[in-house]
Amino acid sequence: MSSTFRNVALIGKPDAPRIAETLSALYRHLTKRGLRVLVERDCAHFVADSSPETCTIAEIGRCCDLAIVVGGDGTLLSAARVLAQFEIPLIGVNLGRLGFLVDISPSDAGAILDEILDGRYSADERFLLRAKIFRNGRALYEQTAINEVVVRSWNAASMIEIETSINGVFLNSQRSDGLIVSTPTGSTAYALSAGGPILYPTLRAIVLAPINPHTLTNRPIVVDDDSVIEIAFRPSKQFKAQVVCDNVSIPDVEMDDRIEIRREPKTFRILHPLNYDFFEILRAKLNWSSGYRS
Amino acid sequence: MSSTFRNVALIGKPDAPRIAETLSALYRHLTKRGLRVLVERDCAHFVADSSPETCTIAEIGRCCDLAIVVGGDGTLLSAARVLAQFEIPLIGVNLGRLGFLVDISPSDAGAILDEILDGRYSADERFLLRAKIFRNGRALYEQTAINEVVVRSWNAASMIEIETSINGVFLNSQRSDGLIVSTPTGSTAYALSAGGPILYPTLRAIVLAPINPHTLTNRPIVVDDDSVIEIAFRPSKQFKAQVVCDNVSIPDVEMDDRIEIRREPKTFRILHPLNYDFFEILRAKLNWSSGYRS
Amino acid sequence: MSSTFRNVALIGKPDAPRIAETLSALYRHLTKRGLRVLVERDCAHFVADSSPETCTIAEIGRCCDLAIVVGGDGTLLSAARVLAQFEIPLIGVNLGRLGFLVDISPSDAGAILDEILDGRYSADERFLLRAKIFRNGRALYEQTAINEVVVRSWNAASMIEIETSINGVFLNSQRSDGLIVSTPTGSTAYALSAGGPILYPTLRAIVLAPINPHTLTNRPIVVDDDSVIEIAFRPSKQFKAQVVCDNVSIPDVEMDDRIEIRREPKTFRILHPLNYDFFEILRAKLNWSSGYRS
Amino acid sequence: MSSTFRNVALIGKPDAPRIAETLSALYRHLTKRGLRVLVERDCAHFVADSSPETCTIAEIGRCCDLAIVVGGDGTLLSAARVLAQFEIPLIGVNLGRLGFLVDISPSDAGAILDEILDGRYSADERFLLRAKIFRNGRALYEQTAINEVVVRSWNAASMIEIETSINGVFLNSQRSDGLIVSTPTGSTAYALSAGGPILYPTLRAIVLAPINPHTLTNRPIVVDDDSVIEIAFRPSKQFKAQVVCDNVSIPDVEMDDRIEIRREPKTFRILHPLNYDFFEILRAKLNWSSGYRS
Repeated sequence: MSSTFRNVALIGKPDAPRIAETLSALYRHLTKRGLRVLVERDCAHFVADSSPETCTIAEIGRCCDLAIVVGGDGTLLSAARVLAQFEIPLIGVNLGRLGFLVDISPSDAGAILDEILDGRYSADERFLLRAKIFRNGRALYEQTAINEVVVRSWNAASMIEIETSINGVFLNSQRSDGLIVSTPTGSTAYALSAGGPILYPTLRAIVLAPINPHTLTNRPIVVDDDSVIEIAFRPSKQFKAQVVCDNVSIPDVEMDDRIEIRREPKTFRILHPLNYDFFEILRAKLNWSSGYRS
Repeated sequence: MSSTFRNVALIGKPDAPRIAETLSALYRHLTKRGLRVLVERDCAHFVADSSPETCTIAEIGRCCDLAIVVGGDGTLLSAARVLAQFEIPLIGVNLGRLGFLVDISPSDAGAILDEILDGRYSADERFLLRAKIFRNGRALYEQTAINEVVVRSWNAASMIEIETSINGVFLNSQRSDGLIVSTPTGSTAYALSAGGPILYPTLRAIVLAPINPHTLTNRPIVVDDDSVIEIAFRPSKQFKAQVVCDNVSIPDVEMDDRIEIRREPKTFRILHPLNYDFFEILRAKLNWSSGYRS
Repeated sequence: MSSTFRNVALIGKPDAPRIAETLSALYRHLTKRGLRVLVERDCAHFVADSSPETCTIAEIGRCCDLAIVVGGDGTLLSAARVLAQFEIPLIGVNLGRLGFLVDISPSDAGAILDEILDGRYSADERFLLRAKIFRNGRALYEQTAINEVVVRSWNAASMIEIETSINGVFLNSQRSDGLIVSTPTGSTAYALSAGGPILYPTLRAIVLAPINPHTLTNRPIVVDDDSVIEIAFRPSKQFKAQVVCDNVSIPDVEMDDRIEIRREPKTFRILHPLNYDFFEILRAKLNWSSGYRS
Repeated sequence: MSSTFRNVALIGKPDAPRIAETLSALYRHLTKRGLRVLVERDCAHFVADSSPETCTIAEIGRCCDLAIVVGGDGTLLSAARVLAQFEIPLIGVNLGRLGFLVDISPSDAGAILDEILDGRYSADERFLLRAKIFRNGRALYEQTAINEVVVRSWNAASMIEIETSINGVFLNSQRSDGLIVSTPTGSTAYALSAGGPILYPTLRAIVLAPINPHTLTNRPIVVDDDSVIEIAFRPSKQFKAQVVCDNVSIPDVEMDDRIEIRREPKTFRILHPLNYDFFEILRAKLNWSSGYRS
């Protein structure tokens, strides 16, 4: 794979002054290598002692061939949801605390970036979901999700009743607080809290995890990644539902709406150092001890 | 135990025409026995061919010595939350589908009521919780709950961070969708969906069950029923929390509010036929097969 | 797909007299169609009023092109583990109680068999796992499994400590009662009891579900079906472990043994009526209500 | 409370040379205070540079008024199961890794022991269970348990079917790998791995947690501590069951045996420093972060 990255973007967690040092160091490091470096405008003021070329996320999509994200998993999720449309690979640098997606620590970032820019990296391809909300037969709203699409009640005093079909075949009708439809990437996020399994990141599968289901045997189900998942609602009093794609909420869902969730054709790539090891991250994040005396 | 019930109330599930037949039959049955029968006014129109004496729930509390509830567990919860203050015992008649609290089926109701009115019954004493919301040091709002008090986020795009203390000792700080504080009565309701244990109805204990906690080791905890549970919030962006007592929601909770939950001094009693068996109801409601071939 | 089945085998649950009627009826039905019918010898005495041609399971494998199994899921598992080597399709007829694999009820069996024998069926291809136990570098024992391979302690007084690698990469070391490695077919069996997810039957994936792990964050993991799973043990006192493939136990596992589990190249096929619906079976088996009043 | 401890026992984890230093230091510390110190004979050789008075565990029970255990939770369990009969309080010193029961670290042990010996301590009273196995109407075997009594299959190839009654009332019949009957003390041990709740240590309750039940709605149940739990077995092929009390196994259980589990009248006490905080131990053992950034 050709690895001639020329136009590189820097994207930082907004409103987080503690990214300033790392962002500035990365800016200097990359410009010193002779690369054209664009800085996402909401974090450009954190780049010290220089007047970087600034741009919007969409402009990064159009004119960069690599984006480096500094922040937490949530920062990378937000950037990736936009950049996936442009097929720009991403690199995640965390702020001192390992993330599932932002796996490079600031202290190693310079050396690892050099490796990656020289073409020595491991490319990790992930898929996204796209949720469409249909009302009266037409798509009213759509949004992509890297982790998960959540359909849920936002009225704690009453459950909702969800009817799910997969590839046109009725799966079940469940009363619950909602349903999580998650990618492998999202399987270590909200779906895990709801009792879902961990999916290996490159597994071609989607997990459906019910949230506090009334029927205790409503357990997480894993289906093929090319499944089309359709969700409708049964009539209920005090119906208040929302659809949440990662951290973007669509609150105005109505009882007669139909939600369709399917895999997005375009994927996104995260570039890791060659010694990247998903299981090592899993052990660290989930406090699995690796020693004899756990 | 003296069992001279003279003033008996009939309370029905509101807006449910299918209670009419049972309600009318019970009205006739009780008046024929020479009892004074008061009918809760919102369901009085379901009593056919007669002009029953009608009253409010509060009036029932003041002048009746027994209340018969016709409906589902939710109907009994609502009535009991008010009547517990007056220490009026309740009898639950379901509408054909067994409930945990409404255990008498309409077809048996006449014969079983006769038994109970003659003093042959099993009295089942349950406790309630009282939640108080404090703002700037004073109690702003309070409500009782028979099943559970739920403190939860109603913004699906972000968890809340809850700090819990028990009897003044810090328990933990958890990021989650919320926390369920449940009585034994509520342990077979929402808390069970969230992974909580079943508590025997007369156990003197309260269960705290986290809702989809970020930290997977945040497991349900069972404490003594005289524990004082205090909940505060850690600062978070997009804070949206509500407190729900059974099915009554208090939506305007603020980030600096403090919630105190403790056992209510007064209990309430449900009267059952002498052969009442909680485990039998459990087996029926949870589809535990009792035969060889499950 | 050609569907000219000429040599058909009948296999029944051994030691189960109540299969006699169904087995006899199927025998008559099939011979009447002019098919050559072989009956597995351990159940041949249940075929009334006739002297059927009898044979062993291995002979069925060599000379039949279809096997009809009468019994429970366990009966089909045992037959399929042998017949998969010969690539003989199976049909499962239950004894009145729906199974996940034996989906045809005795009362419908004649009509459905006619449909299938006429080539109108839905073929459901499933994969198996093969477990090999290595001692001092050589494969000592191997066995296939249709549902799952379980590695577990059989000394309740002490956990074992399992080291798992996937495709040569260390996953984790866990103290637990054992580990279940399950196919999608097995995901609704033992793995489900241990907290694993339901995998759609044709999903190309394997689930690893820990059994009562000491570390609560050791959660089920789903990996690609071409993964090679290697299991070793850490030294422990009172080590007593066994490997169980479906219902076949290999008890003499030693502490220095290494267990390798991978997908078997040959698959097996179950033939269903055209209207076969896995979700319908799931709803029935897991008591998911499909109606308004759950 | 009188706190004049005169005869103090030292009990160490057997076969663990790394206890030598702590054991020797404690021996010197206690003798210097003028106490008579008896050392359990299996660990007496670890006490350096002296010829301590040695004795058996039973002799400790008869002539000491305090026992200090150095090791892990398992070491304390074994000692407490014997000493509870004699009502001797225990103190637990760990070997560098905090336990639920052995809460004092070796570096603090001297100072904390002085506090406790001077009467400044918090006494933590826990109850035990007693399991009796009846065959043909007579008690064949009995054993006490501080954590839990486990009734389980030790044949991984087949579940057992357990019939449970509580106070003479039938609870349920479950097919599973077994049943855990746990004290509050044991609720953070094996029962927690099986999905049970955490019980506050002084709660007067017992939890029954099924192990991998076939029926998914068989959930943990918490009952009063004075409940009598009776367990019988349904006939099954390949029946292999054992009863395990903490880490003591009774392997020769037969299919017609009946097991009775009830609270032991005598309790045992663990002495803690005055600032003992169960929740703090819980947070440490379960990796609950207490800080803002979990």
